[in-house]
Amino acid sequence: LRVPLHPEFIHTVWHTVLLLTVFQHIGGGWIEAQNSRGEVGLVPEDYIEVRDVGNAAPPDLSFFDAFAPTSAPPQNQASNGNDPWSVWNTDATGGSSNNWASKPEGTQTGKSAAADPWSSAAQGHPQAYQGPAEDDEWDDEWDDVKSSGGYAESESGESGAMQRGGAHGSSMKISLNKFPGFSKSGPELYLLCKQLVKGKDKLPIYMGEVGPVWSYPETQLDCVVADPKKGSKMYGLKSYIEYQITPSTTNRPVNHRYKHFDWLYERLLDKFGSAIPIPSLPDKQVTGRFEEEFIKMRMERLQGWMTRMCRHPVVSNSDVFQLFLTYKDEKDWKTGKRKAEKDETVGVMIFSTIEPEAPDLDPIEVEQKCEQFSRFTRAMDDGVKEILTVGQEHWKRCTGPLPKEYQRIGKAFQNLSSVFNSSGYQGESTLTDAMTAAGKTYEEIAQMVAEQPKKDLHFLMETNNEYKGLLGCFPDTIGVHKAAIEKVKEGDKLVATSKISPQEKVTMAKRVSIMSYALQAEMNHFHSNRIYDYNRVMQLYLEEQVKFYETIAAKLRQAHSQFTTM
Amino acid sequence: LRVPLHPEFIHTVWHTVLLLTVFQHIGGGWIEAQNSRGEVGLVPEDYIEVRDVGNAAPPDLSFFDAFAPTSAPPQNQASNGNDPWSVWNTDATGGSSNNWASKPEGTQTGKSAAADPWSSAAQGHPQAYQGPAEDDEWDDEWDDVKSSGGYAESESGESGAMQRGGAHGSSMKISLNKFPGFSKSGPELYLLCKQLVKGKDKLPIYMGEVGPVWSYPETQLDCVVADPKKGSKMYGLKSYIEYQITPSTTNRPVNHRYKHFDWLYERLLDKFGSAIPIPSLPDKQVTGRFEEEFIKMRMERLQGWMTRMCRHPVVSNSDVFQLFLTYKDEKDWKTGKRKAEKDETVGVMIFSTIEPEAPDLDPIEVEQKCEQFSRFTRAMDDGVKEILTVGQEHWKRCTGPLPKEYQRIGKAFQNLSSVFNSSGYQGESTLTDAMTAAGKTYEEIAQMVAEQPKKDLHFLMETNNEYKGLLGCFPDTIGVHKAAIEKVKEGDKLVATSKISPQEKVTMAKRVSIMSYALQAEMNHFHSNRIYDYNRVMQLYLEEQVKFYETIAAKLRQAHSQFTTM
Repeated sequence: LRVPLHPEFIHTVWHTVLLLTVFQHIGGGWIEAQNSRGEVGLVPEDYIEVRDVGNAAPPDLSFFDAFAPTSAPPQNQASNGNDPWSVWNTDATGGSSNNWASKPEGTQTGKSAAADPWSSAAQGHPQAYQGPAEDDEWDDEWDDVKSSGGYAESESGESGAMQRGGAHGSSMKISLNKFPGFSKSGPELYLLCKQLVKGKDKLPIYMGEVGPVWSYPETQLDCVVADPKKGSKMYGLKSYIEYQITPSTTNRPVNHRYKHFDWLYERLLDKFGSAIPIPSLPDKQVTGRFEEEFIKMRMERLQGWMTRMCRHPVVSNSDVFQLFLTYKDEKDWKTGKRKAEKDETVGVMIFSTIEPEAPDLDPIEVEQKCEQFSRFTRAMDDGVKEILTVGQEHWKRCTGPLPKEYQRIGKAFQNLSSVFNSSGYQGESTLTDAMTAAGKTYEEIAQMVAEQPKKDLHFLMETNNEYKGLLGCFPDTIGVHKAAIEKVKEGDKLVATSKISPQEKVTMAKRVSIMSYALQAEMNHFHSNRIYDYNRVMQLYLEEQVKFYETIAAKLRQAHSQFTTM
Repeated sequence: LRVPLHPEFIHTVWHTVLLLTVFQHIGGGWIEAQNSRGEVGLVPEDYIEVRDVGNAAPPDLSFFDAFAPTSAPPQNQASNGNDPWSVWNTDATGGSSNNWASKPEGTQTGKSAAADPWSSAAQGHPQAYQGPAEDDEWDDEWDDVKSSGGYAESESGESGAMQRGGAHGSSMKISLNKFPGFSKSGPELYLLCKQLVKGKDKLPIYMGEVGPVWSYPETQLDCVVADPKKGSKMYGLKSYIEYQITPSTTNRPVNHRYKHFDWLYERLLDKFGSAIPIPSLPDKQVTGRFEEEFIKMRMERLQGWMTRMCRHPVVSNSDVFQLFLTYKDEKDWKTGKRKAEKDETVGVMIFSTIEPEAPDLDPIEVEQKCEQFSRFTRAMDDGVKEILTVGQEHWKRCTGPLPKEYQRIGKAFQNLSSVFNSSGYQGESTLTDAMTAAGKTYEEIAQMVAEQPKKDLHFLMETNNEYKGLLGCFPDTIGVHKAAIEKVKEGDKLVATSKISPQEKVTMAKRVSIMSYALQAEMNHFHSNRIYDYNRVMQLYLEEQVKFYETIAAKLRQAHSQFTTM
């Protein structure tokens, strides 16, 4: 085992070890064993070694038993009915198994994904993102036994809602995870809370040309997600992809797996979700997980997500985000994670750290602003979805019937040309050579047409897809504000019924004004980014389209020149 | 009546006049009358005047009665059940009535014809062309009462199989019309005929570089079909289109209606059909007959047909063709028509006029050549049909879904742009103006895409459609040759059974060789024209395609330039 066996690591491993009753050494590094369900099978030998490490903390059996069943969801049972080991080796139950088990299938899905990458992303509301599939987390338990990344404990300890719920996450925390910022308590948690968080980590809001704005750093943080590496363990039974993230600040690369991105997402959603829309991560696709196209696509999307987070002055400046990008070593990361997960300033409480340098807003104005943003984001959501729909159809046409048609035109020319060649009439070749060339040209055009969407439409779609995700967060973010506004409206009634003191009513009005400044700052941030992004993507799209049509014209001019002018 | 009332004209008119029992003058130039079926209705007054022209030849009632029923075919009865006058005013029974009766319908058909002009031509074997519908001929009876073209008699006297059959055409002639050159008698009519036609109108065949060739004139005949004029008579109850044909030789325009082209076609098919493929005329489309697009299309196709006939050294030099192009006046035309219709050198007898300046061919070689041509024409027919099929699909896509898609892309950009405009964020306009412009550009592209086929694909399709028609004639033309070859093969048997004399066997071999020279000359003519035509049309197609893609690229570059480069 490459990883030092500190207690927590062992503790984690116990969960699994205790399932086993070892029968005998089979050799070849395998041991026959039986799990708690009496299922018998082979287990890698050096995994069993772990058991020999003495004085481990007693395992939390109750938790484990609660966990075991969920680790093998119905559909896995179904798809693996003939695999007694499905309950442990969830790699066989997870779609990823399709990959090494049946390559062609994996490739297939990869192709189709390449042909229409966002078909999956296009469906399902991003906010509805539920975190990684549990079986995948369970499978990660295995990963980390040998994950080159190290810090096995922290991963196994924290990752996955189940873990959080079971091992050592407070249930309050879960509710926050699942309903970031709008837990039963609602905005009044902030509006009425007695004392605000102390001075550290204040989020100032300044008045800029465009209105309230966050405070932006001189140099914008940026990072590069690159070099996806496929790691495997358990004698190749399990594999995963690790990405290298290099921030522009330190320029020192750190490694993260998708599940770490997911952890970060949960933290950010948890902490900033009420004030700042945190776009969900690219969907966790299971099938074809190691298929070239798919890895490229996910990396591209993770890069897009990271770039957006880096661009956000509040998010990029947060401890948890900095930790993710710049942790020095495993220990550093571990401590940071603990801290992040203990953070109290989550949900609506984030507003308690916001300090606008401007006079309080009249509640009427607050409401108007909120309404305006609500209208705009809804309208833009429609506009973006329209582009996605049209673009998807166009993609299908450009990769399907259209090239087929050019292909057939090209073939028809060539066929007629070869018929002409059979005429036996002299001086035929000048025409037939030209016609064959013209035919080939249309076959080339067919090829070009089919490949073009990847060069232009792809980015147009990706950007709009990203914005669709982002816009999908606003209803909730805005919801918090609307709820707060309602509370303030009830102010008098609440005082009358002495639910709150007159002083608290004043405080609520003041705090809803602060929330409004936050929302305005966020909207202004959104707008400036939107203008930048759409200007960029439209340029790129048109640029590529111009190249495309110019190339076709050139090819056809060339073909034309081969005919003799009479 | 603008036309002088010579006896035959009156004779014609009698046919109709005798149907009537005049009741009373209604006024406004109308008279109430009853036809032989007891149907009552209004008749133009000055038509009735005709009756008053005395001393007319007694009408051929027997013929008329025979004619009357056929003049109103079942389907007309059906479609005009509510029109008691359908039996006379066959314009109401013919599809052409749709035109003045229900304009919108006419326009509709026109549009669809424009969208896919050869859909009609694409179906139905050209050789199966049956000549104009009889009701149309009957309707022509009416036309010519006032046809500005004049020569009413000859038309009414000659046009329409029925007329030929009934009035004064020999039935033999009909059989030849319907089975040009391969009447029951078959090629032996020529192979065994005692004495050949006298010296006049010999058709020499020379040996050129490419093999046997017709004798070509120094200057190729050409003509322009133009200036289609819509004439109408019977108070606008009837109308027709007259085309102006101007031959390059005289440069003096003559007028002809479709039915005259049809008459010419029948004569040429009759006279040359066995040796020279005579392509059928553009289909006689009834609906939307006066719809802009349709008239333009038919004229274009009549021009194509005439050009091809002019290009043919044998056809263009024939008396009947020269008559059609250069008749001086009505009398001249009339005489010419009579002569043409009396021509005895029709069907297989055309070979009796052919004189190759080369040694007789060995029957084996004759057969090989024939087989080769048969193979080639069949193969080319397939190739041409493939292009027509692919082209038709491409036409549909380019005029249907594709522009719709670009339209929607354009709209989507513009919609998003207007949403952006509603943001209330400052400095929005630079992006939104550019996006709106880009959107409009894609709408322009949609327009271009939809209109492009008319500019290039159209000619590619027309040329291939023309060749489809031409190639459709070869099976019959080649059939005559194969039949002749078979006869020659039977030679010995026929001599043995003393069906023919040894001398006649020799003659047959000699004559089949002559037929072969004719076929070879025709094939060489076909090949040279084919090479010319396809070279031309491919150039034109590619030229327009280049323009098309270049224009799109330019428009998009313009749109691209409106985005600000950051």
